[in-house]
Amino acid sequence: MSENPAAHARPLTKDTRLCISLAARPSNHGTRFHNWLYNELGLDFVYKAMTTTDITAAIGGVRALGIRGCSVSMPFKEAVIPLVDAMDASATAIDSVNTIVNDDGKLTAYNTDYLAIASLLASRAVDPASSVLLRGSGGMAKAVIAAFADAGFTDVTILARNADAGSALASRYGFAHRVSADAADSADARADVVVNVTPVGMAGKDAGALSFDLAVIDAATVVFDVVAMPALTPLVAAGQAAGKTVITGGEVIALQAAAQFELYTGARPTPEQVAAAEDYAAAG
Amino acid sequence: MSENPAAHARPLTKDTRLCISLAARPSNHGTRFHNWLYNELGLDFVYKAMTTTDITAAIGGVRALGIRGCSVSMPFKEAVIPLVDAMDASATAIDSVNTIVNDDGKLTAYNTDYLAIASLLASRAVDPASSVLLRGSGGMAKAVIAAFADAGFTDVTILARNADAGSALASRYGFAHRVSADAADSADARADVVVNVTPVGMAGKDAGALSFDLAVIDAATVVFDVVAMPALTPLVAAGQAAGKTVITGGEVIALQAAAQFELYTGARPTPEQVAAAEDYAAAG
Repeated sequence: MSENPAAHARPLTKDTRLCISLAARPSNHGTRFHNWLYNELGLDFVYKAMTTTDITAAIGGVRALGIRGCSVSMPFKEAVIPLVDAMDASATAIDSVNTIVNDDGKLTAYNTDYLAIASLLASRAVDPASSVLLRGSGGMAKAVIAAFADAGFTDVTILARNADAGSALASRYGFAHRVSADAADSADARADVVVNVTPVGMAGKDAGALSFDLAVIDAATVVFDVVAMPALTPLVAAGQAAGKTVITGGEVIALQAAAQFELYTGARPTPEQVAAAEDYAAAG
Repeated sequence: MSENPAAHARPLTKDTRLCISLAARPSNHGTRFHNWLYNELGLDFVYKAMTTTDITAAIGGVRALGIRGCSVSMPFKEAVIPLVDAMDASATAIDSVNTIVNDDGKLTAYNTDYLAIASLLASRAVDPASSVLLRGSGGMAKAVIAAFADAGFTDVTILARNADAGSALASRYGFAHRVSADAADSADARADVVVNVTPVGMAGKDAGALSFDLAVIDAATVVFDVVAMPALTPLVAAGQAAGKTVITGGEVIALQAAAQFELYTGARPTPEQVAAAEDYAAAG
């Protein structure tokens, strides 16, 4: 099923809807993911990754050319805010956009990372009374922290290597913060929910590293790693070995991509279709 | 061969080049024609017809989004002139653009109708010393008249229903002009080359009508009809029956489309491939 090599068995027509992405360094992932699902679901859409050196003219072009959807990646996630016509609450929550939908020239901005995390906290029934220990202070950490805050969590401690970034994020939501460079220097911390939103454990130079001390993991009931590559990060493996409720970066990516796909097309792929599309996309 | 139904057997990637068209009322023709040839020639391109209500932002978007080519139809052929970075001589000749090529953000405008007509006059070895009788004064007539003038023809008479338009075109090139509503009121005219650049003879309300009197056709050596639908217009049929050198609207369309295709892709399809792509496009 993950073969589906003919991304456009259906010939294009004047009525085919175009969706694009804008990133400084485009990858093949979105192009393969979305086109695979268009073909699988028989939708008259086509998707193509793009880049630009003029984000204002590019978003003006999305509007003027009737491009149905525009996925937004680094470094444009904040720059597009003044260029759209309306901000969904998901984008306002973190002042960051990853999805723009064009309805007859009206551009509405969303953040489907935020939507995916909020959805996972709800579907896994993570109790808002839980204490939370969260490592990270970058763009994705903003989305995760906002989702916890908006879900009603109040006992949240942010561990950040960068004191200024951690302090700024914590004060925005009335959360605690602590400077921490790695698992070792926060081995004394304890919480019901531990969340990694840093590259620690990611394929590459941080592969194999554990973002929380084993004693911290052992004391928790929920382990959440936003890192998606590899699927089995050291944190996910440790959480599974200890029998914890585990939420993975792969789940975040699949949910946010499905949410984006549904915003563009109105069609909701099944979890199995999303997984197969991710498999196909990752193989490219 | 004209089947080739899988317009995109090749899956799209981030590197696939996008070409579009802009028209007030898009048809399926260009989308089918170009995608068929991309597939036939194995080119990593995709083509999609579009429309816009904001031509300035649309052309800005072509530049900013790195869209490789943009075909331009009514009513944008003159409006895009101040929006491009350079005008090829083919567009300057008639102050009308039907093709924009984007080289790393630099937009160059062409008119491939003019290029096709100039090419046909040369390849058919029509003698510039010939006298020419040309009916029409619209946008396409401008292209044809300019091509005759630039090829060195000086003995040209323009027949136009609209006296002002005919006079303006004639004076631009030092040609003669005459008010004429139909074949009957110019039955006395004589020339070596007769050219129809009006809808007379086109499928629809003017089907069956002959743009020149049979005596005029009989006196000529070259018969040129810009009408392409049907392929066998009354003028083309009369020219063929009388054994004249005949140039058809279908040849103009195929040549201009091939020229546009080559400007976008750098690849030159064979006449047989262009004919097959036109067949496929016309069937949609």
